[in-house]
Amino acid sequence: MTYFKDKVLAMHKKNTGKLDILPNIEIKNQEDLSMAYTPGVAYPCLEIKNDILKAYDYTMKGKLVAIVTDGSAVLGLGNIGPTASLPVMEGKAALLHQFSGVQAIPLTLDSQDPDEIIKTVALISPNYSAIMLEDISAPNCVYIETQLQKKLDIPVFHDDQHGTAIVVSAALLNALKVVHKNIDEIKVVVSGLGAAGSAIIKLLYKMGVKNVYGYDLMGVVNQNNYSEYNLVVKSLIDNNQLQLDNQANNLFQLMKNKDVFIGVSGKNILNEDMVSAMNTDSIIFAMANPDPEILPERAIKAGVRIIGTGRSDYPNQINNVLVFPGLMKGILKSKIRNITDELKITTAKAIANLVPENECSENHILPNIFDKKVVNAIESAIYKTVKNV
Amino acid sequence: MTYFKDKVLAMHKKNTGKLDILPNIEIKNQEDLSMAYTPGVAYPCLEIKNDILKAYDYTMKGKLVAIVTDGSAVLGLGNIGPTASLPVMEGKAALLHQFSGVQAIPLTLDSQDPDEIIKTVALISPNYSAIMLEDISAPNCVYIETQLQKKLDIPVFHDDQHGTAIVVSAALLNALKVVHKNIDEIKVVVSGLGAAGSAIIKLLYKMGVKNVYGYDLMGVVNQNNYSEYNLVVKSLIDNNQLQLDNQANNLFQLMKNKDVFIGVSGKNILNEDMVSAMNTDSIIFAMANPDPEILPERAIKAGVRIIGTGRSDYPNQINNVLVFPGLMKGILKSKIRNITDELKITTAKAIANLVPENECSENHILPNIFDKKVVNAIESAIYKTVKNV
Repeated sequence: MTYFKDKVLAMHKKNTGKLDILPNIEIKNQEDLSMAYTPGVAYPCLEIKNDILKAYDYTMKGKLVAIVTDGSAVLGLGNIGPTASLPVMEGKAALLHQFSGVQAIPLTLDSQDPDEIIKTVALISPNYSAIMLEDISAPNCVYIETQLQKKLDIPVFHDDQHGTAIVVSAALLNALKVVHKNIDEIKVVVSGLGAAGSAIIKLLYKMGVKNVYGYDLMGVVNQNNYSEYNLVVKSLIDNNQLQLDNQANNLFQLMKNKDVFIGVSGKNILNEDMVSAMNTDSIIFAMANPDPEILPERAIKAGVRIIGTGRSDYPNQINNVLVFPGLMKGILKSKIRNITDELKITTAKAIANLVPENECSENHILPNIFDKKVVNAIESAIYKTVKNV
Repeated sequence: MTYFKDKVLAMHKKNTGKLDILPNIEIKNQEDLSMAYTPGVAYPCLEIKNDILKAYDYTMKGKLVAIVTDGSAVLGLGNIGPTASLPVMEGKAALLHQFSGVQAIPLTLDSQDPDEIIKTVALISPNYSAIMLEDISAPNCVYIETQLQKKLDIPVFHDDQHGTAIVVSAALLNALKVVHKNIDEIKVVVSGLGAAGSAIIKLLYKMGVKNVYGYDLMGVVNQNNYSEYNLVVKSLIDNNQLQLDNQANNLFQLMKNKDVFIGVSGKNILNEDMVSAMNTDSIIFAMANPDPEILPERAIKAGVRIIGTGRSDYPNQINNVLVFPGLMKGILKSKIRNITDELKITTAKAIANLVPENECSENHILPNIFDKKVVNAIESAIYKTVKNV
């Protein structure tokens, strides 16, 4: 492990981080200077002054995504603050570019006040085509995203919410094909009601799932603890997206007769008895990172039919990296100003459809994250949806 | 001109602006992913969490300058706003990289409220090694710079102020060698009392110039109009950096018996009579852009000894590009947190000394802006000053 650590640190130190900002022109003489800077630069400036949308043609705004965080909920590391979160944001930008060619730059903000974050992002937004929010703790992230999307005329995407929700939906669509169950008949438990959990619940509802039950550190979501939940969870319940279970006293009881378990919570909270209590042909997505809610071998021994995790060392890796590169490329290409639920579902279906129905199986419900077809499939699905092709 | 315009616009459109943000690593397989992103990325994150200065080693912060503007005073274009100013900021970043290898990214802010700008820059500062303020109107720019430098532990540099002041000082040092006048005996007129003018006056004072008189749209600075000036100009007067002239009623009268005219104001405000009214061996730096306060041929006809402008098509081009690449490289290398007057003078002397005293002449007081020796000379002069070598 020390060898791996040294190797990782050396890699980060070699070029002082993982991103470089480089001119794509040369300035070697007066003529170059007069085109890239004064006096020639006045032409694109004035074009943009007269038509602000020209900034998409003549400046980096047209290709650039900001990856914004306050460092409050970074991977499994928790609240490590803006500066310490920079390597993760650079990694995300590197991933985005590697998979889609879309360019991104981290913006780590030295504030964890939601209104300050909203104001700051709004003030810097002229530079970018889109904003990706990253690793901001719940429920702030939901509020920040909602308010920013209202304020800005560029798309705002919180990957921890919607990237996760989309990839889970894609996985579920194909898993249901394997077990031959209808999406509007399944009963689902979602464990973890933060950013990811609440977004998953909303998107499942939009896709036709009628029965979702919630579980988190406060136990089973029911009438008794309703008042203790934050506004995001209350709104899920009020809008009939999350059902109360007033009978179940614990996770074991809640899991009885359920078809699907989706975990975005903590390691090892599922045991074999809970898995056995589920309906036949059960599906488990245990995505706690790096240690899932239950290890696949244990779940399989207890009778699960399909299990996916966030990990690459088991089948069915359910990872946001299947989503955000294609989605960002698609929204930049299609010049979308708002990522609607329809587009999220389009994206989930595009990912799911990359595994032909006759190839879907217990160990193969999603394309590999390095499959180059994923980005193009999402991009063209979005384009078709937006243009009504 | 249409041909030039088309060529400039095509150049800006070709790659969607002049900068690219590119990963310097590849993510082609699980091992790459585990080093650039989760789980390996946790190592640099935790190193930085334990020692925030490690961010200079493991992240782009260690090599990255933010070029911040509100778009309120962009080149000769005026208040064109943040989005339309992006091509200028990208050009500045491209210049910085071309001349020094230092990387920079534009941050154009959608606010012209000084306190909002200060707050925003403070919140985004964890990403950067230094802040360059650009094209922010006076007197806001002075306030913003001062407050930010107090607030932040990274250097803040307003090029329009100090870049100009430094290159003017360098030009003056060598011009005085040609005319054999002592810096503490010359009488100077500064025309234009905005960002550049006030910074020039401050730095000249620090370099030993004892008599500087001011002129701007309100006329000659004197006891009668003192109360109408902003706090920055008042402070110059109060600190004896700018002298009042209560006799002169206009620029012609003010120019009588002066040795040096420094213009950062408007085109054609100087005429031949004013030049003729100066002392013998007079020096004029007419830097209004793109049209100087007086064209060199007219000034020479009227008897000036040395004239410099911002233009590349006359001798003695006085351009900030001689300053900021080397200065930024120097402060990054020497890990300076505050750009003191001493460092500004060091930089001016380093530039001036690139023209050996016996080569200084009426038409050669500064190195060429494309002279590669400039950046290294400044960098090493700064290093020596900081380390007391």
